[in-house]
Amino acid sequence: MFKLYYAPSTCALASHIALQEAGAAYTTERVDFRSNQQNSPEYLAINPKGRVPTLVTDRGILTETPAMLAFIAQSFPQAQLAPLDDVFAFAQVQAFNSYLCSTVHVAHAHKLRGARWATEEATFADMKRKVPQTVGACFALIERDMLRGPWVMGEPYTICDPYLYTIAGWLEGDGVDLAALPKVADHRKRMSERPAVQKVLAEE
Amino acid sequence: MFKLYYAPSTCALASHIALQEAGAAYTTERVDFRSNQQNSPEYLAINPKGRVPTLVTDRGILTETPAMLAFIAQSFPQAQLAPLDDVFAFAQVQAFNSYLCSTVHVAHAHKLRGARWATEEATFADMKRKVPQTVGACFALIERDMLRGPWVMGEPYTICDPYLYTIAGWLEGDGVDLAALPKVADHRKRMSERPAVQKVLAEE
Repeated sequence: MFKLYYAPSTCALASHIALQEAGAAYTTERVDFRSNQQNSPEYLAINPKGRVPTLVTDRGILTETPAMLAFIAQSFPQAQLAPLDDVFAFAQVQAFNSYLCSTVHVAHAHKLRGARWATEEATFADMKRKVPQTVGACFALIERDMLRGPWVMGEPYTICDPYLYTIAGWLEGDGVDLAALPKVADHRKRMSERPAVQKVLAEE
Repeated sequence: MFKLYYAPSTCALASHIALQEAGAAYTTERVDFRSNQQNSPEYLAINPKGRVPTLVTDRGILTETPAMLAFIAQSFPQAQLAPLDDVFAFAQVQAFNSYLCSTVHVAHAHKLRGARWATEEATFADMKRKVPQTVGACFALIERDMLRGPWVMGEPYTICDPYLYTIAGWLEGDGVDLAALPKVADHRKRMSERPAVQKVLAEE
């Protein structure tokens, strides 16, 4: 039995969907960002990074979305959420997720999380102004070179799909025009029709 | 036979060391950042992200250090660079590498790569001022909670080690005091004594 700590509208959604798709036995606990619960002593004792998601397993906690997604895929091989028998194809899945984590999510975070990297209000405003361009450039690359369709890796649905869906859900808020991203828009629609996604969204 | 595109003093060093430790057959090609070769049409045709590292394999290219490191470990199981038979332990390896990629490297990048996320000179200066604090906080967490010793994952040497070594090599330049990080300093020294590391450094 796993326990997922999450907050709504965060990247934790990707792991939440993956757990549901995998048929995993899990519970969830919401972390209240408004009261800064992620930095409370109680939560820091669970995850000293003060972030979500955190996955509690019977062997200890896991953090970092790409690692958690690969863990879910490997723990539930019958769900076929990653090409586990093909080292190169698995690496492509991981490369896609690593790009979402370290480049796309980071570009997005400059809209509201500028205080992570700077101190001046003018800096935060400058960062915020560039978000439509930086996130837009990431998604232009995804649209052109990465998203094979109908799913990220082509025919097989993988752990790349809930992660892309999660971050693509921030595009309007980031000021990126969906009209220029027809494959991403189609992917988002297709994801929103999956029963696992609908169940998780209703729960969050 | 693999081919690794790299530039000196970049995170490509981690994959370079891992290839060497794995006993892989590979060649290297240096990308000249001074002439902005990473954004030349020739290089963008290989890797449209315009970054290093890029690993050319007979099935196509791979990018993103965490994905490449896991690929190297899985491709050369006899080198035992990751706990491939233990899904949870493998996830811990991946979580460590994901943290280095998406948090620690990103904190460091605000020193010289501010133009990725903003446009004003004053912003770049503000970002740069905070780097000792942000990178320092990441490494304080690594020192306290993550680096088990003697290697990152304890007794076994894994793909976490060349990656930590690579990023820890930037600490002085980032204005972080090594004296407060005795385990990290010891790890760096221990890494520098490995024949594979010495060979790769001489080559780069």
